[in-house]
Amino acid sequence: MMTERSDTPALEIARQRAAYGRQQSDGVLVIRSIAMPADTNPAGDIFGGWIMSQMDLAAGNLAARISQGRSATVAVEGMEFLRPVKVGDEVTLYANLIKVGRSSMRIHIDVWARPRYERQANKVTSADFVFVALTDEGKPRSISEVPDPS
Amino acid sequence: MMTERSDTPALEIARQRAAYGRQQSDGVLVIRSIAMPADTNPAGDIFGGWIMSQMDLAAGNLAARISQGRSATVAVEGMEFLRPVKVGDEVTLYANLIKVGRSSMRIHIDVWARPRYERQANKVTSADFVFVALTDEGKPRSISEVPDPS
Amino acid sequence: MMTERSDTPALEIARQRAAYGRQQSDGVLVIRSIAMPADTNPAGDIFGGWIMSQMDLAAGNLAARISQGRSATVAVEGMEFLRPVKVGDEVTLYANLIKVGRSSMRIHIDVWARPRYERQANKVTSADFVFVALTDEGKPRSISEVPDPS
Amino acid sequence: MMTERSDTPALEIARQRAAYGRQQSDGVLVIRSIAMPADTNPAGDIFGGWIMSQMDLAAGNLAARISQGRSATVAVEGMEFLRPVKVGDEVTLYANLIKVGRSSMRIHIDVWARPRYERQANKVTSADFVFVALTDEGKPRSISEVPDPS
Amino acid sequence: MMTERSDTPALEIARQRAAYGRQQSDGVLVIRSIAMPADTNPAGDIFGGWIMSQMDLAAGNLAARISQGRSATVAVEGMEFLRPVKVGDEVTLYANLIKVGRSSMRIHIDVWARPRYERQANKVTSADFVFVALTDEGKPRSISEVPDPS
Amino acid sequence: MMTERSDTPALEIARQRAAYGRQQSDGVLVIRSIAMPADTNPAGDIFGGWIMSQMDLAAGNLAARISQGRSATVAVEGMEFLRPVKVGDEVTLYANLIKVGRSSMRIHIDVWARPRYERQANKVTSADFVFVALTDEGKPRSISEVPDPS
Repeated sequence: MMTERSDTPALEIARQRAAYGRQQSDGVLVIRSIAMPADTNPAGDIFGGWIMSQMDLAAGNLAARISQGRSATVAVEGMEFLRPVKVGDEVTLYANLIKVGRSSMRIHIDVWARPRYERQANKVTSADFVFVALTDEGKPRSISEVPDPS
Repeated sequence: MMTERSDTPALEIARQRAAYGRQQSDGVLVIRSIAMPADTNPAGDIFGGWIMSQMDLAAGNLAARISQGRSATVAVEGMEFLRPVKVGDEVTLYANLIKVGRSSMRIHIDVWARPRYERQANKVTSADFVFVALTDEGKPRSISEVPDPS
Repeated sequence: MMTERSDTPALEIARQRAAYGRQQSDGVLVIRSIAMPADTNPAGDIFGGWIMSQMDLAAGNLAARISQGRSATVAVEGMEFLRPVKVGDEVTLYANLIKVGRSSMRIHIDVWARPRYERQANKVTSADFVFVALTDEGKPRSISEVPDPS
Repeated sequence: MMTERSDTPALEIARQRAAYGRQQSDGVLVIRSIAMPADTNPAGDIFGGWIMSQMDLAAGNLAARISQGRSATVAVEGMEFLRPVKVGDEVTLYANLIKVGRSSMRIHIDVWARPRYERQANKVTSADFVFVALTDEGKPRSISEVPDPS
Repeated sequence: MMTERSDTPALEIARQRAAYGRQQSDGVLVIRSIAMPADTNPAGDIFGGWIMSQMDLAAGNLAARISQGRSATVAVEGMEFLRPVKVGDEVTLYANLIKVGRSSMRIHIDVWARPRYERQANKVTSADFVFVALTDEGKPRSISEVPDPS
Repeated sequence: MMTERSDTPALEIARQRAAYGRQQSDGVLVIRSIAMPADTNPAGDIFGGWIMSQMDLAAGNLAARISQGRSATVAVEGMEFLRPVKVGDEVTLYANLIKVGRSSMRIHIDVWARPRYERQANKVTSADFVFVALTDEGKPRSISEVPDPS
């Protein structure tokens, strides 16, 4: 957030407010989105299914890059929800690649939520996603045989 | 599908086509929806996250009735994807109540998909969802102390 | 909802709560979904148009199977709304095939809504949908000349 | 489309292209939207249900103004689809107020679609929507007793 | 809103209520939609981004017709928001073609919002959108060389 | 992406593929999302309006934290689109706080898109968003008088 334009005390205060708290996770930040009213369940809460959907998108984002092509979710393990997500929360998903097999990838996803007016995020949930690389016909394919990305 | 109006051979044939194949699951049918183009991922497939989102809605539907109030997902276990879901598939979610604790419910969800022009559905995935009943303030509450539904 | 795992009195009570009330309709259950906050109109009600959209999807679901291919809505008749649908309601659509012509199908749709915490659903609306089977070029085609579904 | 800026022959040609063809309907233009890929059914067509949903929104738009408050759809009559709507079509809905009762309004809706690169729209469908004015508790209320809009 | 059916005083009053106030803009009406609960931001307001999205769709609608093919936004200038849009507002977008270059079009968009129960709309925002006509490969193409629309 | 579990050569290769290219922008990463098929325009491209909508959400995310409350977009300046966004692209929005007035904030947003199978992102667009802090009644309010976030 550096800029060469004239900095004022108000700007300095605003920047401190804009700064994030401590490092949230050691993974790659693959998705960061805002929980919207359209994502609520009948009780007005952001429902677990929306969060799961984001986690699958996040793991799939990394799996696409690693496998350099189409892939699909084959398993999800150990998902636990520690606290609710509220409308307006900034929801951040971090991915850690855990294991790579011939055609499969195990990706750990951590989800953190920062309340709209706060600096600090809290961990919401995490899970391991297993993806398998697929050919255009939907058969498993080798990950290592594809050329590296540019 | 009984009707008193005049039945023709064409109507009879059409009804046979409309009939479902063998019983899909022994659970309660909690959601049945059509996978739409708007639910696809960048590769054009119905992505796992959309299915997870439907599973959470389905389990939450049953949890709401059992707990007679607000509840939230606390864990998801043993989710495995056996085959892909395609645009146009009729996706059906069955729920089996497995266990009830003081404030928690374990609900098993089975997902079956029937291709748009076929009679027979195939199992897509299943998982156990654990929900906890919550007070308006978000604290766990006893399930059995609420009066039965009308 | 049978299971071989240990059943407790709490589980028994929960199962009774989860059970549906009397049979809702004699048609085929083609769609069952949860009315969500994202489906509300500016007054906060689930608007008629969302329900109509689900009815058309439901009738189209059956029409696709009967005609074994592409089809389109050509008429909707006798739609009456008996009561409102609320956020959180479980909305179930039943289809009855009424008549089959050379390339057209008349399908009656009944819609029932069950409040989130209740056992019993109430009828919301019903209508007749007329669909016509189409070729890839959008011309009417014969329904009976296609082979039966597998 | 008047402007005081310098007009060129190219601008003149462009304006002719931008001009609409003949008057489409004698009703009030209540909704004009673009049919998007997210509105397609599994066959890739804009499905009837999306159009019905727009018609209900359109009639409800007029009903809200006439009744100066909350209202709900109670019946839809005589809906016929004359031709399909394609992705990219500009879809215009015209409303004609037909009859006003103590608490009910009959509103005729005409739908026209203009292909994305053409000047002329074609009629797609029409229907009569009956709305009833409601109190906050959902009971029918008199339309004429409310003060006129500012 | 003329009709040959029997007109009553109630009908006449209703029609006056349904009539719009003074002419809102001298441009072409390219989009008119209803701001829905699903379009709100975490604070419950219709957020600026939704309005911008509609403006881009509106300008693109006109650009498609003028250029008779694919086009893309290259710049947006001078966007100012004068007042908020509320859930239920009827939002109308008017387009004025300002300038046409070899492959570019400058289109001015005005946005007006009419509260759900009122006759008169108020200006919400306006901006200039610059679009460029593109070939299928995404290269700029000449606008005038395409044949006029039917 | 550190982990203590057993690392293999395949894992090492996969991690290199997962790594991002050079630093994309010096701003705060406020939104990162995947462009989905549901976000396309009639031509199959991710349309400018969807990107603008994300930019407004991103700037609003920062504005909420700085102003510690409700705020609204009042102007957007200098938006230029350098290249298209494709379905599947990872779209990242960076925010730089430029200026803070009594009740207004000027926030510069940069948007970068990384193709689904590549390491390197490219700049798509940027613009300055001016937000004003608002009271619950929608009147401008002082930013500095609110207490700092926890």
